[in-house]
Amino acid sequence: MSYFKYGKINLYYEERGNLSSEKVVVFFNGVMASTNSWVNQISLFEKLDFRIVLHDFKGQLLSDKPSGPYTFSEHAEETKALLEHLKIDRAHFIGTSYGGEVALKFAMIYPEMVETIAVINSVTELDEVLKFFIKGWKALAEAKDPENFFYGMLPTIYHNTYIENNLDLIKNRANTFNHLPHDYFTGQIELYKTFEQDVTMTDSLHLITCPTMVICGEEDILKPKKFSKIIANNIKNSEYITIPDCGHVTIFEKPKELNSILAGFILKNLL
Amino acid sequence: MSYFKYGKINLYYEERGNLSSEKVVVFFNGVMASTNSWVNQISLFEKLDFRIVLHDFKGQLLSDKPSGPYTFSEHAEETKALLEHLKIDRAHFIGTSYGGEVALKFAMIYPEMVETIAVINSVTELDEVLKFFIKGWKALAEAKDPENFFYGMLPTIYHNTYIENNLDLIKNRANTFNHLPHDYFTGQIELYKTFEQDVTMTDSLHLITCPTMVICGEEDILKPKKFSKIIANNIKNSEYITIPDCGHVTIFEKPKELNSILAGFILKNLL
Amino acid sequence: MSYFKYGKINLYYEERGNLSSEKVVVFFNGVMASTNSWVNQISLFEKLDFRIVLHDFKGQLLSDKPSGPYTFSEHAEETKALLEHLKIDRAHFIGTSYGGEVALKFAMIYPEMVETIAVINSVTELDEVLKFFIKGWKALAEAKDPENFFYGMLPTIYHNTYIENNLDLIKNRANTFNHLPHDYFTGQIELYKTFEQDVTMTDSLHLITCPTMVICGEEDILKPKKFSKIIANNIKNSEYITIPDCGHVTIFEKPKELNSILAGFILKNLL
Amino acid sequence: MSYFKYGKINLYYEERGNLSSEKVVVFFNGVMASTNSWVNQISLFEKLDFRIVLHDFKGQLLSDKPSGPYTFSEHAEETKALLEHLKIDRAHFIGTSYGGEVALKFAMIYPEMVETIAVINSVTELDEVLKFFIKGWKALAEAKDPENFFYGMLPTIYHNTYIENNLDLIKNRANTFNHLPHDYFTGQIELYKTFEQDVTMTDSLHLITCPTMVICGEEDILKPKKFSKIIANNIKNSEYITIPDCGHVTIFEKPKELNSILAGFILKNLL
Repeated sequence: MSYFKYGKINLYYEERGNLSSEKVVVFFNGVMASTNSWVNQISLFEKLDFRIVLHDFKGQLLSDKPSGPYTFSEHAEETKALLEHLKIDRAHFIGTSYGGEVALKFAMIYPEMVETIAVINSVTELDEVLKFFIKGWKALAEAKDPENFFYGMLPTIYHNTYIENNLDLIKNRANTFNHLPHDYFTGQIELYKTFEQDVTMTDSLHLITCPTMVICGEEDILKPKKFSKIIANNIKNSEYITIPDCGHVTIFEKPKELNSILAGFILKNLL
Repeated sequence: MSYFKYGKINLYYEERGNLSSEKVVVFFNGVMASTNSWVNQISLFEKLDFRIVLHDFKGQLLSDKPSGPYTFSEHAEETKALLEHLKIDRAHFIGTSYGGEVALKFAMIYPEMVETIAVINSVTELDEVLKFFIKGWKALAEAKDPENFFYGMLPTIYHNTYIENNLDLIKNRANTFNHLPHDYFTGQIELYKTFEQDVTMTDSLHLITCPTMVICGEEDILKPKKFSKIIANNIKNSEYITIPDCGHVTIFEKPKELNSILAGFILKNLL
Repeated sequence: MSYFKYGKINLYYEERGNLSSEKVVVFFNGVMASTNSWVNQISLFEKLDFRIVLHDFKGQLLSDKPSGPYTFSEHAEETKALLEHLKIDRAHFIGTSYGGEVALKFAMIYPEMVETIAVINSVTELDEVLKFFIKGWKALAEAKDPENFFYGMLPTIYHNTYIENNLDLIKNRANTFNHLPHDYFTGQIELYKTFEQDVTMTDSLHLITCPTMVICGEEDILKPKKFSKIIANNIKNSEYITIPDCGHVTIFEKPKELNSILAGFILKNLL
Repeated sequence: MSYFKYGKINLYYEERGNLSSEKVVVFFNGVMASTNSWVNQISLFEKLDFRIVLHDFKGQLLSDKPSGPYTFSEHAEETKALLEHLKIDRAHFIGTSYGGEVALKFAMIYPEMVETIAVINSVTELDEVLKFFIKGWKALAEAKDPENFFYGMLPTIYHNTYIENNLDLIKNRANTFNHLPHDYFTGQIELYKTFEQDVTMTDSLHLITCPTMVICGEEDILKPKKFSKIIANNIKNSEYITIPDCGHVTIFEKPKELNSILAGFILKNLL
């Protein structure tokens, strides 16, 4: 358990893989998630001999949860500080949902540190449906009933095929929500507010010049593929791929397809 | 305000249009809705000189809410009794969502009373996502916070275009939830349980032989069009039409398109 | 067999239904089609007591085929002259594909004669794919091998379900192409050129103020639904409906669904 | 220019990349294509230090064109003989369209030689639309008008975005068809017949146990994604990815996306 102190804030982080490798990949979590959500991707990049950096944003599970809302620039700045602390100059960045939005912001303001970014099921603007989804998340988080929170999110997050094939796993995951630290929901609410107030960045996407992979689950209800198309259309050096039969949580729902895309995209950009 | 007493249960009903017309249309409400939800369709069928019958199922707004869960057959049986009371032998039936499911059941067990049915955004089976949506509705209804209930449902019910163009109307509708009778949520929970336990009827759809119109909003998240396709595929004498840029509440979101389809379907079957 | 002479051009036309009815519907053929293509719709509007007018545009089967290319305005002007000849002041217009494009043009330049228009599988602009489809039609028409012409068009025109269920009918239809008049292909080529040079009219769609129904087969390859969406988005008083499991020839592939929509749309606008 | 003689048939083939590499990738052409169609993929796998094998199937551009129809098993058998001749025991196989279908057949009958297969825009059964497309190809090939042949295929093969951005390139490609060898169309017709008579193999897909990547252009008209879904659903160890804004010729239309997927899929399966 490592913590990096930035100003007054303690950020939880992990390093994995080959710590002396020149090839570095940094993972940015989805909002509800934590560093361990990347288990399927970590084992791949370990085998590919990468140095791997993961951390919880402020507001997330194991990091501090100062009162917010925050900004995506702050998340980027804090990541930059963490990477400097680890003596990492440049890296590949992979982010899902909220984490993808941080990756986009990072590539805008610290382009010199970015080899490539891969952005999974993210958005750079809101529509009315998404605004009301956020309102719903906040209400669920405020109620502080962990299982209700999880089950309230569930049908807009996972596609039917995944649920059907993973009913036990889902029950277990619901159960783990009962054991979350006390301040988990406080952090969540700040992160939802941050998302609501600061995610609008379509107009700045043209600033991103690094190779960019945009990936979206075909059946994502929460952040449907129209948003990924906006991202891909506004970044010149981008690729855009969809994964059928997949909802919002591509990292769990379609790890094999996702790993093929991520590995190929990053490895070819090392050549 | 008319009530029809069936056994111990008082069912709220209304008659509209030309009460002496031979042409009768019966509307079946969506689960959260009431007789006044059909305002856009009522004015059309009034002009077309129809006799119009509306009622709240038991469990809905103005009808009794006995403890349940109920069955779709009971709803059909109670409708039949109401129609006999009104001396109506045969009618056209239009139902949306839960009401469409009652229309299907009615056509199965009382085919001699049915000229045609039109079924809007309905299902005849559940998948895992839909089961978890129901779980979420129950949690929202049990919390008995009217505005949260409404806003929790909202993003899975209305498509973005409708919300965008009707933000004031939506605020008003949220507000009306604050003035719902005390027992509204009790009824809702019984209706959700009924839906969950009894809606599975794909295997009986072949019993329906009357002309059947199946309509679905292209962007319905809650009861997506794959379910309407199942209904259309399993009823021989069916037509199937989708309405683009439309979510689950076709009756509010796309009244013009819906009215064209309903009027044409019913009028051509009168010829 | 009636002909209307406009200038030097003989236009084949038919009247059907109740010739003294105040309610008039005018059908505009698809490019390869003729007046008899509307058989499924004629019987409906006969029963609905409409006066029905059909004709072949110049270049089509039974009308003269002067050298072209023509313009959509000319088709509209000739239709106007025909209607004046028949002493018809106002009518409902239904057109499919090329005929829908004529209906749009007619509504732009003779709004006082138009009650409503219904436009099926039409476009108001070209994309590169459509341009190359036209190039292919011209090559097929120039080869003057009737069955090859028909079969060359077939897979981009009918959706799989229709072909599967109508293999004999399709063989017969192919066979009828062997008995087409000598000058059929000459006319077709002029019509394709007209389409290519003159169909672009998106920028004028705002001139259309009458109630407009836009219908598209979900699986139309030739004039896919993105074009219908453009039409619907640019006409204020429009409705837009899609028909699943349907290709370009909605009038043959889904006559029941189409009739419901057309009847309802026109009848409600008579109220 | 190398030829491999199998029985009486001369098969044109090429080797590229690092000929002494243990990592071997074999490319199988689409029906109209030739070895040089893989230019975008060859440069990638050269940099990845692969040994690369390409060849024209019998019937294709530079190989013999014996009278047929052939079978997919024969293509597989001839490939096996070529690989044995080159002393290659096992390889990764990548095929597009017709070539993907050969890859599937190869994996069924010579599983011991297959590390992985990647199948792009392929089918394992026909529907009525596809049958009529084949009929159209045969008519076009029989007419032996090279540019007409190319332009007749064009709108069902490339998606609009690609055509729009590559009009000059497309004109050049059309022009190259004028310089094709005399017997090109003879070969094409045999290959179309082979496809028509022998491509049905859905029922044998369960025999494929190697890691399988199934890729489809979202907008493929010719072999639409429903066919790729059938392939993916029937192979246990498969991944399935779609590429938006892409027609049938993914290898030209979306080389960046395709390369990411292919590189990642194959490299992770080397680990």
